[in-house]
Amino acid sequence: MKFCPNCAAPLANRIPPGDSLPRDVCDACGSVHYQNPKLVVGCVPEWDGRILLCRRAIEPRYGYWTLPAGFMENGETAAQGALRETLEEAGARVEIIAAFSMISVPYVNQVHLFYRARLLDLEFRSGEESLEVALFEEAAVPWKDIAFRTVGLTLKHWFADRARARFDFHTEDLK
Amino acid sequence: MKFCPNCAAPLANRIPPGDSLPRDVCDACGSVHYQNPKLVVGCVPEWDGRILLCRRAIEPRYGYWTLPAGFMENGETAAQGALRETLEEAGARVEIIAAFSMISVPYVNQVHLFYRARLLDLEFRSGEESLEVALFEEAAVPWKDIAFRTVGLTLKHWFADRARARFDFHTEDLK
Repeated sequence: MKFCPNCAAPLANRIPPGDSLPRDVCDACGSVHYQNPKLVVGCVPEWDGRILLCRRAIEPRYGYWTLPAGFMENGETAAQGALRETLEEAGARVEIIAAFSMISVPYVNQVHLFYRARLLDLEFRSGEESLEVALFEEAAVPWKDIAFRTVGLTLKHWFADRARARFDFHTEDLK
Repeated sequence: MKFCPNCAAPLANRIPPGDSLPRDVCDACGSVHYQNPKLVVGCVPEWDGRILLCRRAIEPRYGYWTLPAGFMENGETAAQGALRETLEEAGARVEIIAAFSMISVPYVNQVHLFYRARLLDLEFRSGEESLEVALFEEAAVPWKDIAFRTVGLTLKHWFADRARARFDFHTEDLK
């Protein structure tokens, strides 16, 4: 059972008039409550050919390595969100170069968006959500201990693009 | 006053432990209710150098012209959402070529994402949310009657990219 955030009455789940999908509808106050996918925004922070990764201090995937990223917040742009997450999780100041990868993850209702970014200095440090933060060259990336498929794919695209000396924008869908 | 969708108790708005922003917090059941930006996904459908636009039959911007686009739904990829909106609003079947523009609109908590697309036939027709649907060459685009700034910017990028015979991925932030 779910309740209306506007009036606390019980919600019904059905297709509203003129719509095509079931929604949480309030018969008491007439409001409709939509659920939509969330954007996860982050960076691929580079320093001299190495990439900054964070080892997660939180679930899901505690102890696994990830790029700094998190849920985009209301009131910010996608790039501002990526900068904020990079500062929060890795204590790292970066300059964004360009959008790099956008991967839909429909089974968790998310779209993951990563920017290529340049570290401005080496004064990074673990935030509250990271156990450790470190720079990795390609051969040293802990491929078997990457937290999320979108992060692994983004890293693979990054090293492949660097090898051919041209960075593209990559879109992909996970199943 | 807002109420908890899980237990119907009144919500408080404050910063939860370990967080940095105020959230809707339920002291009765301990749940936290996040608000995040929404993705609006759509297409730039092309046929022989002309672009398909829809004249809106709904508010906001009733009577103004737009590209087919709408809120991405749970369970779909961004590209599937763009195809669905193009079919719903313009009755148009398209093939997606590539992601084309991504524009953050932080003052309404949205990110607008448009794909370049090729119309598969000319059997388009107005959906319930459109008054009319038509193909426009560049000189005929109703620039003063475009519904949204993200749509105007995307169309300008499209015609500029076509003129130089190279389509890029464009990211932008509105203020």
